[in-house]
Amino acid sequence: MAFSVGVVGAAGYAGIELVRRLTEHPDFDVRVITSDADAGCSLAEIYPAFTGMSDLVFSPHNDAQLDRCDAVFLAVPHTVALGQVPRFLEKGISVFDLSADYRLKDPMLYQRWYGTEHTSPELLERAAFGLPELARTEIERVAAEYAYGHPVLVACAGCYPTATSLAAYPAVAAGMLQGVLSVQAVSGVTGAGRKPTERTSFCRANENVEAYGASGHRHTPEIEQILGLPDRVVFVPHLAPLGRGLLSTVTVQLTDRAAAGFDAAAAQNLYEDFYADSLFVRVLPQGRMPGTSQVVGTNAAHIGVAYREATHTLVASCALDNLCKGAAGQAVQCANIVFGLPEDAGLTSMSLPV
Amino acid sequence: MAFSVGVVGAAGYAGIELVRRLTEHPDFDVRVITSDADAGCSLAEIYPAFTGMSDLVFSPHNDAQLDRCDAVFLAVPHTVALGQVPRFLEKGISVFDLSADYRLKDPMLYQRWYGTEHTSPELLERAAFGLPELARTEIERVAAEYAYGHPVLVACAGCYPTATSLAAYPAVAAGMLQGVLSVQAVSGVTGAGRKPTERTSFCRANENVEAYGASGHRHTPEIEQILGLPDRVVFVPHLAPLGRGLLSTVTVQLTDRAAAGFDAAAAQNLYEDFYADSLFVRVLPQGRMPGTSQVVGTNAAHIGVAYREATHTLVASCALDNLCKGAAGQAVQCANIVFGLPEDAGLTSMSLPV
Amino acid sequence: MAFSVGVVGAAGYAGIELVRRLTEHPDFDVRVITSDADAGCSLAEIYPAFTGMSDLVFSPHNDAQLDRCDAVFLAVPHTVALGQVPRFLEKGISVFDLSADYRLKDPMLYQRWYGTEHTSPELLERAAFGLPELARTEIERVAAEYAYGHPVLVACAGCYPTATSLAAYPAVAAGMLQGVLSVQAVSGVTGAGRKPTERTSFCRANENVEAYGASGHRHTPEIEQILGLPDRVVFVPHLAPLGRGLLSTVTVQLTDRAAAGFDAAAAQNLYEDFYADSLFVRVLPQGRMPGTSQVVGTNAAHIGVAYREATHTLVASCALDNLCKGAAGQAVQCANIVFGLPEDAGLTSMSLPV
Amino acid sequence: MAFSVGVVGAAGYAGIELVRRLTEHPDFDVRVITSDADAGCSLAEIYPAFTGMSDLVFSPHNDAQLDRCDAVFLAVPHTVALGQVPRFLEKGISVFDLSADYRLKDPMLYQRWYGTEHTSPELLERAAFGLPELARTEIERVAAEYAYGHPVLVACAGCYPTATSLAAYPAVAAGMLQGVLSVQAVSGVTGAGRKPTERTSFCRANENVEAYGASGHRHTPEIEQILGLPDRVVFVPHLAPLGRGLLSTVTVQLTDRAAAGFDAAAAQNLYEDFYADSLFVRVLPQGRMPGTSQVVGTNAAHIGVAYREATHTLVASCALDNLCKGAAGQAVQCANIVFGLPEDAGLTSMSLPV
Repeated sequence: MAFSVGVVGAAGYAGIELVRRLTEHPDFDVRVITSDADAGCSLAEIYPAFTGMSDLVFSPHNDAQLDRCDAVFLAVPHTVALGQVPRFLEKGISVFDLSADYRLKDPMLYQRWYGTEHTSPELLERAAFGLPELARTEIERVAAEYAYGHPVLVACAGCYPTATSLAAYPAVAAGMLQGVLSVQAVSGVTGAGRKPTERTSFCRANENVEAYGASGHRHTPEIEQILGLPDRVVFVPHLAPLGRGLLSTVTVQLTDRAAAGFDAAAAQNLYEDFYADSLFVRVLPQGRMPGTSQVVGTNAAHIGVAYREATHTLVASCALDNLCKGAAGQAVQCANIVFGLPEDAGLTSMSLPV
Repeated sequence: MAFSVGVVGAAGYAGIELVRRLTEHPDFDVRVITSDADAGCSLAEIYPAFTGMSDLVFSPHNDAQLDRCDAVFLAVPHTVALGQVPRFLEKGISVFDLSADYRLKDPMLYQRWYGTEHTSPELLERAAFGLPELARTEIERVAAEYAYGHPVLVACAGCYPTATSLAAYPAVAAGMLQGVLSVQAVSGVTGAGRKPTERTSFCRANENVEAYGASGHRHTPEIEQILGLPDRVVFVPHLAPLGRGLLSTVTVQLTDRAAAGFDAAAAQNLYEDFYADSLFVRVLPQGRMPGTSQVVGTNAAHIGVAYREATHTLVASCALDNLCKGAAGQAVQCANIVFGLPEDAGLTSMSLPV
Repeated sequence: MAFSVGVVGAAGYAGIELVRRLTEHPDFDVRVITSDADAGCSLAEIYPAFTGMSDLVFSPHNDAQLDRCDAVFLAVPHTVALGQVPRFLEKGISVFDLSADYRLKDPMLYQRWYGTEHTSPELLERAAFGLPELARTEIERVAAEYAYGHPVLVACAGCYPTATSLAAYPAVAAGMLQGVLSVQAVSGVTGAGRKPTERTSFCRANENVEAYGASGHRHTPEIEQILGLPDRVVFVPHLAPLGRGLLSTVTVQLTDRAAAGFDAAAAQNLYEDFYADSLFVRVLPQGRMPGTSQVVGTNAAHIGVAYREATHTLVASCALDNLCKGAAGQAVQCANIVFGLPEDAGLTSMSLPV
Repeated sequence: MAFSVGVVGAAGYAGIELVRRLTEHPDFDVRVITSDADAGCSLAEIYPAFTGMSDLVFSPHNDAQLDRCDAVFLAVPHTVALGQVPRFLEKGISVFDLSADYRLKDPMLYQRWYGTEHTSPELLERAAFGLPELARTEIERVAAEYAYGHPVLVACAGCYPTATSLAAYPAVAAGMLQGVLSVQAVSGVTGAGRKPTERTSFCRANENVEAYGASGHRHTPEIEQILGLPDRVVFVPHLAPLGRGLLSTVTVQLTDRAAAGFDAAAAQNLYEDFYADSLFVRVLPQGRMPGTSQVVGTNAAHIGVAYREATHTLVASCALDNLCKGAAGQAVQCANIVFGLPEDAGLTSMSLPV
């Protein structure tokens, strides 16, 4: 039996990747895809990749069909989800929210970074943080609630926080970090969304790399929350001429205690052990670093680890597809867990080898 | 009166940029360009961009014409320059060496990182380090020697060290750094040289970003030398799908003392003051970060500065053209100073605005 | 029950796409993948996209396991297949040959264009030409032979001939062409193969478009054979900065008779009718032209049709993935037909929508 | 003595290239650059490539300073120039118009293709067509007028018409063409202008090639006019993932008479002779085809010629920079001629060799 689902904000880049993933998924039946701007247009008109693959037509955001779904996936801008999540939950519909609105547990942090008051802070504890590899108990808690007939809310982790946390967590959770965690990340241009702007125009983005948000990007508090490092993360994102793909490289300065006797092999073991049971996180063989092209189109995260003894610094780099493991794929992975499906259902495709 | 010059290793990417810069230079007369592999071929055959622009023909590396030049520029792989520099100096010919062979003042460091003994360590002190903005007194010293009729040796700084040091120096020289300097950099594929390899093939490099050399890249000791930070630099370079262009972003964790009363405006002032008299280093207005595309083809370095108060971290990002300010342009800039020419002679062109 | 298959030349770009397609295929069991250069290496070592997806290891070309397969796919350079195809057929193993060796029915044409005598011309008639949409009866003939227990040979069509013929066939087969067929095509760099060369290096291919083979490309006689237009095709291929993707645009000058009363709607109908039953060829709505990005990673061919009345010229443009519908996917499609499987088994994935 | 000039529409892509060219030009003094949208902003704010290179500030289109210039360059959309050109001429100011408004000599053709009546058809004969290599007498006529104190109008040729006509002219002017001229061209994304749109966004344009305007692009009548081939040109443009660069490849089907005794060497001679005295058009050695990367940033046009004997078809391919020889550089070249300056003044820079 298939679960009926809807996608709100389906015409944006995360939304359309959700539609791809969900229509190819064996256990989901996509009933509604909404986009106010594209309402009435067929999928294939807006995204010709769907030509011959689907007959879905965009409907407006207020399509009443949504209310008959088992779950909705929200791919709307932050603050917009604030207005929708409570309504769906009240109607008994589970929500997988790809926006930032329910990720931060502290509503004051939300207000500080997003510039608006949180209007349903009572849901923050109820929400599960959607990053199964690092917050599995939260997802399992809401899976149990769902099994008992309750609608659930999963606040799926952001793209940068997912890659960064996966790269840093094994070392940080082991208490090895001294001082501040230094993070630099690179994202493809899909990360900036579908709306055409000067910054995302081909002629500006092509043959260019530049940093942005260096004095404080909104994903910083989310990373600090996951890693339990309040005000201890320096996060500098960059834009690079890729369509999809995101790479986050962290430098973990080890405490003297952690550095004693530590070496590259120990770093490798630490990461391999930590992710041994993970379906989607793959620690590459020692000496190799991940490339974004190798995970594009997949839900995989590839991690490489290195260690420089002279400075006692562990370097870990994590590559993922910002629209997949960093957004739509992760949401589907969370939904799989909540609905009791195999965790990788509909998520087994690999990237193009060249 | 023009100075006669030769380029050894002219068919590689740094070499050909030297040829472009020197043939367009008002005060240099390019007499010889060498390439063993392409000897006998015209410039335009190997690099069609020169069609109709130059009649130069590649000659072998041992072309005796080199001995009649005022100066030679060496764009050869490291260790190869070791065999050539002493010979040219003995013949009274000044050398601008783009290789790494005479950059490190400590011959043991050279041996450790390049895996071979330094065969002319007596020249290391005599060499000037070719990064005028940060080592002007060295260049001026050899300029004076040249003025007295002595051949000189300039060991031009590497691309990553130039960008990284320009980004970090004002803060580091002010004694503001606490702990380790964390550096992440991104280079275009020209940085990997002309020789076709799997790694530099279009199909591998395209739509891909990945880290490399994370356990210790050879440019690390050079950065540590410039900044006076032995074993205190963590440097992680990345490859991105650009032809030319290099960006280095440093995170400087401030000491408590330095952080007291410090803010973004203070950071901006620190950098603007430091580079106020520099012809080629431009500190962007507060709030802007540099992009590689805006410096490609030029000798400019663009720097942006940001400060996150919560973590006491200064972030500085420097963009330059790895083949120009990071190689050929810097060599020409050094030669201009040595020969008493305007520092920006032949180096005034701007990048394509789009 | 799965068919056991092997891939010879599996480490090249067409070969590795075959491996991807065949390992994801529900009815094939990949037993052997060969590469002399990479023998002993795991798939993931050479193509990290396979990390965690497959345990296959490359074996040498002469691996005896091949002889126990139901079929082999040859992704070897032309002339190499000449030496292998007869041997496999003698052993009762069916062959899907992606090389050019058995495509041209006239051995003298082969000799003229490939510079070597054809050593098994007796197989040319036996071979089916592997372009199901335009040569279905040949494929069905060998499918019947296979059903009776005979090993079969399918000479899969090349990438340029597939796109070009799909674009031109409906008009040409209707006898509408006057004079010469003018074809211009653009291919991504994967079309030039995996071996690193100056031409396929990132720094040369990036930001560049250029024509090649303009005085006669080897795919010309293949196109002329399919369309029944000996010495009437002018084919000019170009290289563009794409990884995958191929676009062929043909201009069909209409005879006066064909032009009488013809218009854009008639052109659209002609193509829609012709491909109405095709699973993989999709004629886009009138007024739209196909883009390569929308078919990458899929076995689809998208076609757009336009008509300029003033000059009586029909323009048709066909986009496909040169490694998929232009190589590996088409081979799998042929194998599906031969083995009595659904024609699109293992070939239903869509491209990434952005 | 410098000529004072203004640029109207300076913030678009052709406009900003004009600004770059004119500010680097030894004989022009740029007094005004206008952009209503960016009025009040400095050049460097909008195009950071100008950081440290120029203090110019954008002013509104109606800036009275324009009236004190010797000449204005119009880089405005078509139909906008219609409203400005007569006014400037009346004030005695010469105009170099980069729009399409005065290119077509027949006002009815203008109306048909641009959908609006031509409001100053009396100027069409007075205007010189700005493509010096193929319409030198027109430019020289207005140069003489200017020398006598009259303001002049030059309607600079478009990017596609320039490349296409340069490729086809020698054969067409020799009367060798039979039937229709088939043209396929590829442009970089700068050709679509600066305004951000879905089509020019990085994520759509990247890794994609597609045809457009196949049923009749507005540049068709301009090409037909230059070549004297009314309703005999089939022109199909494509968009490819390049910033700058345009390639037009023409296939000229020879008349039987022209084909008699013709061969590749004859084709090569025809083109080399035709362009022997051209400063900017370079016919590549036999067997080579031009690449767009080798002319980017320059005013050069590179042409390669091939001949297929079996079909009696001459293929010529011309590469140029759409914003330079296809727009701003050509306008400067025309201005140089009109003002009696060396034709290549300010236009001698070469492209980056890699």
